[in-house]
Amino acid sequence: MPLPDRGIEYGDGLFETLLLHYGRPLFTELHMERMAHGLRALALPDCLEAARQQVDKAAGFAAQKHWPWSALRLSITRGPGPRGYAPPTQPKPRIIIYVSCLDRDCGQMDSAATLSVADIRLSDQPLLAHIKHLNRLEQVLAAAQTQAEAADECLMLDHTGHLISVAAGNLFLLRHGELLTPELVNCGVLGTRRRLIMETWGPSIGLNVREARLKLSDLESAEEVFYCNSLLTVRPVTRVGEQFWDSNSVCNALFQRYLEELQ
Amino acid sequence: MPLPDRGIEYGDGLFETLLLHYGRPLFTELHMERMAHGLRALALPDCLEAARQQVDKAAGFAAQKHWPWSALRLSITRGPGPRGYAPPTQPKPRIIIYVSCLDRDCGQMDSAATLSVADIRLSDQPLLAHIKHLNRLEQVLAAAQTQAEAADECLMLDHTGHLISVAAGNLFLLRHGELLTPELVNCGVLGTRRRLIMETWGPSIGLNVREARLKLSDLESAEEVFYCNSLLTVRPVTRVGEQFWDSNSVCNALFQRYLEELQ
Repeated sequence: MPLPDRGIEYGDGLFETLLLHYGRPLFTELHMERMAHGLRALALPDCLEAARQQVDKAAGFAAQKHWPWSALRLSITRGPGPRGYAPPTQPKPRIIIYVSCLDRDCGQMDSAATLSVADIRLSDQPLLAHIKHLNRLEQVLAAAQTQAEAADECLMLDHTGHLISVAAGNLFLLRHGELLTPELVNCGVLGTRRRLIMETWGPSIGLNVREARLKLSDLESAEEVFYCNSLLTVRPVTRVGEQFWDSNSVCNALFQRYLEELQ
Repeated sequence: MPLPDRGIEYGDGLFETLLLHYGRPLFTELHMERMAHGLRALALPDCLEAARQQVDKAAGFAAQKHWPWSALRLSITRGPGPRGYAPPTQPKPRIIIYVSCLDRDCGQMDSAATLSVADIRLSDQPLLAHIKHLNRLEQVLAAAQTQAEAADECLMLDHTGHLISVAAGNLFLLRHGELLTPELVNCGVLGTRRRLIMETWGPSIGLNVREARLKLSDLESAEEVFYCNSLLTVRPVTRVGEQFWDSNSVCNALFQRYLEELQ
């Protein structure tokens, strides 16, 4: 990659991770809509058409390789610029794509996960919430702790102790038959699978889905807990600290909905 | 630059900007101490010796070119890693250096600056405060606003409305003959020049220097306002909104102290 680039200098850019099934990117439009939102939030030029072409090209490569499952990372940075924080007046965004074959079978739901609770709290930054920008040190530090504690994932809270998400995905819990996900106001990423579950998949299996202000203690009354992201789709949670769950019927039903979309 | 690199993926790294006078880096130890602090905070391996060698080499290049003033940017990223936020267990940090000739004469104090007030607030993140990491979108958005408002720099506040810094530097104000700088607890960078002014230069010109919780309204009683960074050293502020200052005697005295160090 040519330097300088504001992506590496300041994390000045955005990214998406797309799941590819035999080279076919899944739910591309949801990723592109979030990317469009991010481009506006960072006042980056609309370069989505060029990004889309690059995605297609990389997807073609995965198809040629007959990779059953692969992950495509699309990054858009503000590109080169003069020294200093001020963005160039005529930015030339840089599109970076890599695609890698996945070992796991994304047509099978992953085994239930054990979650730790991240020490680091997600900071409040309404102007950068929701979008998938390249400033991810909070997630990096959380994931390092998860690794050290030999958990599969971790819960992330904000400074007031409210649940926001896991490090690499969004969180859901079933309570009194209703599906709840943390309300994301000042931090947290609006996940593509979160959106699918809220708008389509959840209602289609007869569930009421809504956002709520949730605390760690709300897990006590949860009948089922799971998280979602683009590669795992949904993954049940079996344990957080001393709390255990063995039910995953809603998570399983949502995974079946995803499998239907693969047809 | 070879990819993948966690610097561009997550802003997973640190940087320093050193001022070079005829190829001689100034206050290298202060930059290296902050970098060491950052490496520990991000649990990155100690690669300072290698960084130092690269800095010397780049500085030699600037010396050969007879550049009177140049800026050296040293970045250290966590280097390559597998997909996902979790850092590799055996990271191979990447050291990136570029050095560029400066047009301006850093032996002359810059003309007094006009400051805007950034709309974006610095978010509280005690685990990432003080260090100069690569997650700088808040500063980028603030600098974009400064540019749009045709100001020279901007004041940055935290979520409680307390003064923290400018986008690219630390802030000082003189009040009742005492030099005050915002206390940095949950956000803000511990600047190398801030440290010099607090520990050495300020006391050497007979000033009491201390950290304080300051609000925008505290500017009203300030006799003098200035900011500092590695390239400008110190720069007087002439205006914030409807407030004006024409005194810069302390700022000027500190700049003279810096000129003495150049000998």
